[in-house]
Amino acid sequence: MRVSDLMTPATLLDYDRLKANIRFMSARARDNGVSLRPHIKTHKCLEIAELQKNFGAAGIAASTIGEAQHFARNGFKDITLAVPIAQDKMPAIKQLAVRADLKILVDHPTSVSHLVSALKGTKMELDVLIKVDCAYGRSGVDPSKRSSIRLVERISKARRLRFAGLLTHGGHSYSATSEEGIIKAADDESQAVLQFASLLRKENPNLAPETISIGSTPTMMVRDVIADGITEVRPGNYVFFDYTQVALGMCRAYNCALTVLASVIGSFKDRLVVDAGATALSMDEGPTHIHPDCGYGKVFSDYEEGAFAKSTTITALSQEHGKVAIGRDSPLKKAKPGSRLRILPNHSCLTANLTDEYYVTSGAEVIDIWNVYRRRIVT
Amino acid sequence: MRVSDLMTPATLLDYDRLKANIRFMSARARDNGVSLRPHIKTHKCLEIAELQKNFGAAGIAASTIGEAQHFARNGFKDITLAVPIAQDKMPAIKQLAVRADLKILVDHPTSVSHLVSALKGTKMELDVLIKVDCAYGRSGVDPSKRSSIRLVERISKARRLRFAGLLTHGGHSYSATSEEGIIKAADDESQAVLQFASLLRKENPNLAPETISIGSTPTMMVRDVIADGITEVRPGNYVFFDYTQVALGMCRAYNCALTVLASVIGSFKDRLVVDAGATALSMDEGPTHIHPDCGYGKVFSDYEEGAFAKSTTITALSQEHGKVAIGRDSPLKKAKPGSRLRILPNHSCLTANLTDEYYVTSGAEVIDIWNVYRRRIVT
Repeated sequence: MRVSDLMTPATLLDYDRLKANIRFMSARARDNGVSLRPHIKTHKCLEIAELQKNFGAAGIAASTIGEAQHFARNGFKDITLAVPIAQDKMPAIKQLAVRADLKILVDHPTSVSHLVSALKGTKMELDVLIKVDCAYGRSGVDPSKRSSIRLVERISKARRLRFAGLLTHGGHSYSATSEEGIIKAADDESQAVLQFASLLRKENPNLAPETISIGSTPTMMVRDVIADGITEVRPGNYVFFDYTQVALGMCRAYNCALTVLASVIGSFKDRLVVDAGATALSMDEGPTHIHPDCGYGKVFSDYEEGAFAKSTTITALSQEHGKVAIGRDSPLKKAKPGSRLRILPNHSCLTANLTDEYYVTSGAEVIDIWNVYRRRIVT
Repeated sequence: MRVSDLMTPATLLDYDRLKANIRFMSARARDNGVSLRPHIKTHKCLEIAELQKNFGAAGIAASTIGEAQHFARNGFKDITLAVPIAQDKMPAIKQLAVRADLKILVDHPTSVSHLVSALKGTKMELDVLIKVDCAYGRSGVDPSKRSSIRLVERISKARRLRFAGLLTHGGHSYSATSEEGIIKAADDESQAVLQFASLLRKENPNLAPETISIGSTPTMMVRDVIADGITEVRPGNYVFFDYTQVALGMCRAYNCALTVLASVIGSFKDRLVVDAGATALSMDEGPTHIHPDCGYGKVFSDYEEGAFAKSTTITALSQEHGKVAIGRDSPLKKAKPGSRLRILPNHSCLTANLTDEYYVTSGAEVIDIWNVYRRRIVT
């Protein structure tokens, strides 16, 4: 099958770029002697995780119970559920722990109590990581506080729980406006967990964390050298990249592996209408802090070269329609219904979450079709 | 099963509110003597479409090939594919037309040529509606132009095509900031198609449109009396409503049928973190033109009463995390991991597109589970 034979909107995945991206990040981890645990929430795809494993990934990170179950059923045994858990997930976590070598995340004493209750009467032991905040300000304990040390002590003393280490995520790298900002976020990541690890060791050598895990795609891309003491990195987005990463300077457009193929369904003097709307691209506004007029994704004039069409902006998305403003210089001035556009999404993780399959491409050929598993929970 | 037994994030659907909303819109259409063709892109659910039919819906409007195929296979025969078509959809449209009484949309002569080529050599006849722009500025022909009349003539002369009528959508009702603005959009809808219909009749009585179709949820809600000559209305969102409709004044919070149940997974002084992120709520920014600080959905303090929690704003979504700022007055100050929040999404159509099933509720009970069909195309 050829790309030109596909009905649109179709989510395309360039096989060579995907492999190059996977190879690059694996080499970065290997050269630094740290484990690579890619976050599979980006792709939710067994074939991609297999590729990551073949290039040396030690395990995976997952975000949802559904993802963790799907990958556990399909041969992935070393799984970190990288979102703090709540009480309603306990039955599912107990089931998962039978199938997989599961690590879970905690940042609050209430969650520890829930875990202890849930495991009471079982013979199961669960590995627990402490989520540490590194100035991102979403989840995680404050690494400078005594209460954070007490949380670790509580876990290490609890029956059926094993303190497995520390984990952080420098998500504030995405709001940086310069490479310096991203380097700062990378410093925050390493420092937060290493300083907390050192505090713990000083408090009690038995509390020394085994795993010290960091990572986001931007903080990995700006780091040739990973700080001593870090044992694991967990980037996710790098398999695909996207326009946000291009704007942050973390990759070039010709590194981006995931695109959406759309058809023109309306042709007007000032605009085109395409059949890729919010359900194909996602409503993610992209890196507006860097490029205020970026629109809802970038239209390629030449995907192989990584060139964007000038004077061409996706200005609005409704459910199944995309509105593409075309200026005087746009190469799409003559596009008519039936013409095809290839679009780089602002945020490939959310775009991937909207499709059932990737059309895996090599040039103009579709060489495979891979499923995306997007169930959040399994009932 | 009870709502409290569900794993989160869970998409809840209040059965009584759903039925009341369906009943209201059916009565509005019936009282005006027009056909109701609900847009099923909002819910993508057979059970909901059955309810709409039981209350008098004459047919359905669909947005994607996948939706149209799914509903055609399941007993819905009168289907308007309410998005202009492009060449790649022709084989699928021919297949669909065998199963269903299909009407398709055109707004460009190139699409007519594609249709004619696709049907050449078949014995099939296709009903074609002209999409008319009513000042929304997305798709559709300009009803005041000669070229629009020529497009109708072209269809009516083409072998295997039948000119079935006119269709418009006052989508600009959503960007209105007052009821007057929505009434203006409703006027635009009716006037655009009625004036074009009158032009066509004057040009040639044989071009008189049979179907004259309008509709959006806001333009239907502000219209007790539908203009003479309109034959059909196509609202979609009204089955659920959402926070955008509340902000526009089209409904009250206690009319909203679709909500997302989330668990607290992080508890901090200034914020909660919940397990409903971009994949549960969608990144739709909501009615920021009316309420700039609305956040990514509204947290209920009491769903039955339709009361929102004060000083509580969903300020950011990442893939599986939602960040909820809690001010001093927030009733959620004491929420801990495991606490539950019920969230009204900004845009229920996009929220629905992110789930596999609705948990149908009556008070605290889950009385049924209904599937959502969210494939865009079928390969």
